[in-house]
Amino acid sequence: MKVSRRELLKGVGALTVGAGLGGFSLAVANGVMAQDEKKVQTLPDLPWPYKKLDPVLAAEDGYAGYYKGACSYGVFESIVGQLRKEVGFPYTMVPTTLLVVGQGGMADTASLCGALTGAASAIFLVAGGLDPKKREVAYKIIQEVFLWYEQTALPDYKPNKPRFESIAKSVSNSTLCHVSISRWCKVSKFKAFSKERSDRCGWITAAVAKYTVEMLNKHADTTFKTIHTLSPESQKCRSCHDRGSVLENTRGIMDCGGCHFSPKKEHPKI
Amino acid sequence: MKVSRRELLKGVGALTVGAGLGGFSLAVANGVMAQDEKKVQTLPDLPWPYKKLDPVLAAEDGYAGYYKGACSYGVFESIVGQLRKEVGFPYTMVPTTLLVVGQGGMADTASLCGALTGAASAIFLVAGGLDPKKREVAYKIIQEVFLWYEQTALPDYKPNKPRFESIAKSVSNSTLCHVSISRWCKVSKFKAFSKERSDRCGWITAAVAKYTVEMLNKHADTTFKTIHTLSPESQKCRSCHDRGSVLENTRGIMDCGGCHFSPKKEHPKI
Repeated sequence: MKVSRRELLKGVGALTVGAGLGGFSLAVANGVMAQDEKKVQTLPDLPWPYKKLDPVLAAEDGYAGYYKGACSYGVFESIVGQLRKEVGFPYTMVPTTLLVVGQGGMADTASLCGALTGAASAIFLVAGGLDPKKREVAYKIIQEVFLWYEQTALPDYKPNKPRFESIAKSVSNSTLCHVSISRWCKVSKFKAFSKERSDRCGWITAAVAKYTVEMLNKHADTTFKTIHTLSPESQKCRSCHDRGSVLENTRGIMDCGGCHFSPKKEHPKI
Repeated sequence: MKVSRRELLKGVGALTVGAGLGGFSLAVANGVMAQDEKKVQTLPDLPWPYKKLDPVLAAEDGYAGYYKGACSYGVFESIVGQLRKEVGFPYTMVPTTLLVVGQGGMADTASLCGALTGAASAIFLVAGGLDPKKREVAYKIIQEVFLWYEQTALPDYKPNKPRFESIAKSVSNSTLCHVSISRWCKVSKFKAFSKERSDRCGWITAAVAKYTVEMLNKHADTTFKTIHTLSPESQKCRSCHDRGSVLENTRGIMDCGGCHFSPKKEHPKI
């Protein structure tokens, strides 16, 4: 959580100048608070200002961040770190170390891929908000990144100075860390706790950071559109199981086949 | 992100007084930064100071927060909100609206249960950090909450003024929103997008907030110990599939049976 003097001064500039950031206004003079209590009580609401970022720089920062604070921190810091430099406050006040928790599918439990937790969090800062309409704007971008992740042979970006020169690609068919890693192990023949697998997740962090910035840049240009949709097979499942259907006994925007009917048979005798 | 004048003044107190919070020290006087650049560059590292909280108050705040910003925000704000009052800075500077993104298993995709995303994030602020040893401390508490969630008939807390007087309990066998909801639909006979199901997730938010605070209070007392462990069946799976095993082709701390071999057969003909 080191913040350069320049970045922090930007933040203080915003603190003292105030206007233009969701109404945030905090005047600190001679060590006492400003008298205008109403202004003092307001912090900037989401979404926060965004400047178009360099996707390749985000990818490289993501890869470096992976080896500092794992997958989720890697993606989040690659975006918030650039915004801290380009925008300053309020990004100077984000404790990005919090996102370390997304590591290994949230605290090493291997549920949601941490790179996606970092991506979703960064997108929500830039495009989301408490208001349901704002949430929906951010969720559309997040869902695009998630479906791209499920359906694409990843990693699709090679870091400039990788620890391993070649990393096999695999399609996860799932947003889950557990499934994504097992599918990669099957393709690559490497073990789940090997250094090669770890580096693969560094490459994945870079790839997710890059794609997330590309989508956020489109959002900034107001040209964002959903590219990836659920597979026809999953849409068929949803026609009986999702909102408004006969059964309506589930929810979700995930590839059904990523988990269901896989393995197709009972476990072999042990 | 409203912050009371009292809370913000606490924050500014910490900003000007500094010491005792991971070395954070920022003096703002006459509108200019302090000359000590080294001190200015440091923000408080995790973990942040914790005061034991009221679990029932967290549960009630969690239920109220659910109807404001959904499950993940509900749990996170129920804890950070109390800490903002009891501790002040640095909790006064946390944009808790960010955690809205965990809604419906992250942006409505139904992967990791949002209440657990909120819990994990709050635990990491209080008990975690970038250092791997600090991460491990937080991850143990988070994994306890996750395994409790998987194995317990929930919700096990009834809010004081619930929208529905009675909500069926179910065991999720999974940390996933999608699975948790489908299992509850099967038990309760309500649909996945019904008002009853939504209220059930409000109760779940309350229950997770309460249990998380109970575990954090034990951590504060240095009496925290893991209570819930993986089932014997899952440990048997791990003996061939996890770290150091013959296959070592997966990772995770999740009930294997929550997804695998469920359904046990192929989908019926449609």
